[in-house]
Amino acid sequence: MSTLRVPPQVPAASEDCEQLKKAFKGWGTNEDLVISILGHRNAAQRKAIRKTYADAYGEDLLKELEKELTSDFERIVLLWTLDPAERDAFLANEATKKWTKCNQVLAEIACSRSAHELLLARQAYHARYKKSLEEDVAHHTTGDFRKLLAPLVSSYRYEGDEVNLALAKSEAKLLHEKISDKAYNDDDIIRILATRSKAQINATLNHYKNEFGNDINKDLKADPKDEYLAIVRATIKCLVRPEKYFEKSLRLAINKRGTDEGALTRVVATRAEVDMMIIKDLYHKRNSVPLDQAIKKDTTGDYEKMLLALVGHDDA
Amino acid sequence: MSTLRVPPQVPAASEDCEQLKKAFKGWGTNEDLVISILGHRNAAQRKAIRKTYADAYGEDLLKELEKELTSDFERIVLLWTLDPAERDAFLANEATKKWTKCNQVLAEIACSRSAHELLLARQAYHARYKKSLEEDVAHHTTGDFRKLLAPLVSSYRYEGDEVNLALAKSEAKLLHEKISDKAYNDDDIIRILATRSKAQINATLNHYKNEFGNDINKDLKADPKDEYLAIVRATIKCLVRPEKYFEKSLRLAINKRGTDEGALTRVVATRAEVDMMIIKDLYHKRNSVPLDQAIKKDTTGDYEKMLLALVGHDDA
Repeated sequence: MSTLRVPPQVPAASEDCEQLKKAFKGWGTNEDLVISILGHRNAAQRKAIRKTYADAYGEDLLKELEKELTSDFERIVLLWTLDPAERDAFLANEATKKWTKCNQVLAEIACSRSAHELLLARQAYHARYKKSLEEDVAHHTTGDFRKLLAPLVSSYRYEGDEVNLALAKSEAKLLHEKISDKAYNDDDIIRILATRSKAQINATLNHYKNEFGNDINKDLKADPKDEYLAIVRATIKCLVRPEKYFEKSLRLAINKRGTDEGALTRVVATRAEVDMMIIKDLYHKRNSVPLDQAIKKDTTGDYEKMLLALVGHDDA
Repeated sequence: MSTLRVPPQVPAASEDCEQLKKAFKGWGTNEDLVISILGHRNAAQRKAIRKTYADAYGEDLLKELEKELTSDFERIVLLWTLDPAERDAFLANEATKKWTKCNQVLAEIACSRSAHELLLARQAYHARYKKSLEEDVAHHTTGDFRKLLAPLVSSYRYEGDEVNLALAKSEAKLLHEKISDKAYNDDDIIRILATRSKAQINATLNHYKNEFGNDINKDLKADPKDEYLAIVRATIKCLVRPEKYFEKSLRLAINKRGTDEGALTRVVATRAEVDMMIIKDLYHKRNSVPLDQAIKKDTTGDYEKMLLALVGHDDA
């Protein structure tokens, strides 16, 4: 359900590298050429391009892009060109370094990826930062946020579909009790969200709704300004309905006065090859305007062109 | 530093399987034959034997062993024959199911294995139990024990040698403050032990000793009967001096009135191929008697023979 458009005949990596080298040459950069290549290659192809570029020119393509491009366009091209696991490691590291209570990126990465993808991100984190992801998360966050985020980023969930219905029932009850007592940081709430498989959590939350009437996230909205509660809700959404979470992220990023380019870039770069087709569809339904039109209205220039390429816009 | 003795000419797996099949035949079992094969094959060879056995006879070698052997001898042969990751998953699962506050097996597995070995154990846990290790640990343990054990079994530590000395200094100070306040379950103590690399923790604890005079484990012995403190000390030992931890486990298992076969079996089966040579050496120095002599004195029959084979006793 990727929105990426890869041409039927993909040039050899060496040819792409020559074109990129050409795009960087002389004064100024040929941004359109960069977009026409990198904006239309999948993860494996981009990886081959990076390797071929390093072999052929002895230079890191990412460093070249950093030198040649600027601002939001630079950021989306860099993020996009990174391998997904490296990209997650990079985003998570950035989130720990400038962590604030309203930063949901760590929960997003920990919960919307598969167990294996999160593991690959943790391995990429070791390689790049000479530390573990969980040690930076635990070190840079505090209080309830740490209590929730450290186990989330450390999880390696079971990925099977098996569901224990008796357990779903008892844990739905447990969640309801704790939430009714406003014990939102309770050990058991965190334990369930951080360790159970996604299928099991889904069953538990279905039972919660059937038995107690409300969607759990509604009950977790007692104080809409509470940033801890917001992260708990984001966690739950990323675990069971990631597309809905990302649709909302895009909606908030675009509808903001002044656009939140950080979020827009991150969601497009991380989801284009995963589930952007579904996110686009949800976006259209929820906002009565297609995502590409909304992007066109809110962004300009090469940044706009790259975003449109990644969300599969017709002319991009 | 394995004590395992593999013959210079190892028979083909098919030949070993034929011999094992022969050992199981008729009334009674030829235990000596079982020991002479399985007690002298490394992990890769045992794996090949299991596979070949299943292919040749359509039967699971482990199930056959379970049927043919009994008691302590059965347990050590079964544990030993398992792949190390499966064995860790099995031991950890057992520890969660019959968890008591004095059970240190979870901390032992989480901290004495490499990051990669722990990950393999978590993968084996998924495959075997259709659940994650951390979800069972978090579900079956409580209070401070859960607070410590859940992050320990979820860790994927950085394994490099790099040490941040400034950090070691500040975290040694932090540990000392919390311990002086008797805040043994403090978030920061757990964070440091559960997330920092082993090299970093070692540096921190060296600094602790230099600066504050005592080995940290001495300061963590305020109440020798406190089972939580005992697990914290075991955690630290497994992280920085696993051989010392295992020497002590053997010492306590053997010197107990009546021998603790559970611990003796576990330590021999899990360390024979890892660091038993060092453990044996430490044992001899600390107890003034060689480990194999101590084992001979405390155990009998086939169980004794299998233990001696695994610790590399001359005649075994």
